[in-house]
Amino acid sequence: MSAGPLAEAMQRIARDMDSAFDGLLPVPTDARARLVEAMRYATIGGGKRIRPLLLIATSEIYGVDHTSAIYAAVAIESIHAYSLIHDDLPCMDNDAMRHGKPTVHKAFDEATAVLAGDALHAFAFELLADQATSGDPFTRAELVRTLGNASGLSGMAGGQMMDIVAESESFDLPTITRLQQLKTGALLGAAVEMGAILGRVGPEGRTQLRGYARDIGLAFQIADDLLDHDGDESAAGKALRKDAAAGKQTFVSLLGPDRAREQARMLVDQAISHLAGHGAEANLLRAVARFIVERNH
Amino acid sequence: MSAGPLAEAMQRIARDMDSAFDGLLPVPTDARARLVEAMRYATIGGGKRIRPLLLIATSEIYGVDHTSAIYAAVAIESIHAYSLIHDDLPCMDNDAMRHGKPTVHKAFDEATAVLAGDALHAFAFELLADQATSGDPFTRAELVRTLGNASGLSGMAGGQMMDIVAESESFDLPTITRLQQLKTGALLGAAVEMGAILGRVGPEGRTQLRGYARDIGLAFQIADDLLDHDGDESAAGKALRKDAAAGKQTFVSLLGPDRAREQARMLVDQAISHLAGHGAEANLLRAVARFIVERNH
Repeated sequence: MSAGPLAEAMQRIARDMDSAFDGLLPVPTDARARLVEAMRYATIGGGKRIRPLLLIATSEIYGVDHTSAIYAAVAIESIHAYSLIHDDLPCMDNDAMRHGKPTVHKAFDEATAVLAGDALHAFAFELLADQATSGDPFTRAELVRTLGNASGLSGMAGGQMMDIVAESESFDLPTITRLQQLKTGALLGAAVEMGAILGRVGPEGRTQLRGYARDIGLAFQIADDLLDHDGDESAAGKALRKDAAAGKQTFVSLLGPDRAREQARMLVDQAISHLAGHGAEANLLRAVARFIVERNH
Repeated sequence: MSAGPLAEAMQRIARDMDSAFDGLLPVPTDARARLVEAMRYATIGGGKRIRPLLLIATSEIYGVDHTSAIYAAVAIESIHAYSLIHDDLPCMDNDAMRHGKPTVHKAFDEATAVLAGDALHAFAFELLADQATSGDPFTRAELVRTLGNASGLSGMAGGQMMDIVAESESFDLPTITRLQQLKTGALLGAAVEMGAILGRVGPEGRTQLRGYARDIGLAFQIADDLLDHDGDESAAGKALRKDAAAGKQTFVSLLGPDRAREQARMLVDQAISHLAGHGAEANLLRAVARFIVERNH
């Protein structure tokens, strides 16, 4: 697949996400307006939409109804958005810029940022569990279980705790790999897994997709570390080189940039090899894997 | 029902909750240990367990399997616990004491408190969606939808936003009632509703239980305002009279303590009248309604 179809898919999905968030989060006329403005600010018009892309690309292999896939994609993107809002807080990473604009606690205030994250968190699960959006009850319960597992203690939140501890302790490569698998890999994996749940994929297909997701998850993090190491702040839309400044171990600091780059490329090849059982219908997932290491932000 | 059976039920449920949280949140051997310690600190051995009590008392009317009720009670108590952790943060209410011990950000640190709240939030939904804990898929999806709705924008988080706005704007009685209905009432209502979902209660029974929940929710908040007005800080285990100091409108400031007390008693009578279709099996719910306005903390 050339860059064309991937770029087209990314534009289409970005449009669909913006329009879904816009429709699902109307601003109320009471004092909750400020909360919804913050939720909209954090979800509409920004971000690469990698998780929706993975979820939708997977679901399209299996001919899943587009509306169900969009709702599930909104749910996982809401979780991602809440995690960025909380991550950017002064007591966490203390970041002032995100996606080229002020972070939520800068544009609003800290209390609103905490609450907007919490409300997006609840919104994700409410949306997945809603009969109107995600089909039969078994599918809904499975989507919730998968997203809950990937975002909590056994996934993203657990990885973020390890990341905080990594500022004061020196971790080895296996521990950094585990940290990143939880912090970033689990949610990327959930995106693919949720597409597979919607597509009612059997155990063997699920195992292959899980292999794909694990490999691109790690490749994604190595690429992030490389971008943090030698990327451009204006393209990234956020502050870079904070890990090095904090003395935190990353794939780049542990492997060096050349071996890290080689490792990321190898993981992408390996990820694509997990899709060998599929034909052209998996080309978008293949293109996403390549994009993950070739992107410049 | 005399105070005896209610006190016994509360002790039994407190023990069941402590033991369930203890079993469900084992401390891992990796760097996530600090996160789980904070989650345990916030959930084991403290609190009145009002939401578990309401959920379990409702489910017992309909003979629900005890294990399912306990898991659902753990889920709603996890949501309540996460909301207290985030509420106590310096950027929110900035409270140093809760349940007679330092708040989570004081005992650990702010970043750990934000993450422990987030991890408990995800844990609640993961637990409800898990096949092993909450029965058939339809029940699981309904429990998630109900808890998600009550804790997000249309419930608790929305009410908390209104509460923040109330510090700078003067609200009238209908707006304060709406604020409290969202901030506290929605989750108390969800406790009863989740018990009813587990008990497969029909539409008419659900309407009655919803009426009960709405009335005790409001009575609970009026009682809280009265305790804040003339309660004892050591019995409460937290700082009191903060609303008056902040110039915030409450039921007591708007109605005066005498009319507020009368209103709370009237709501309790009205709540109990919604249970008229039930016999002795609803005595625990009746006793909870009375306890809510008679408690001293």
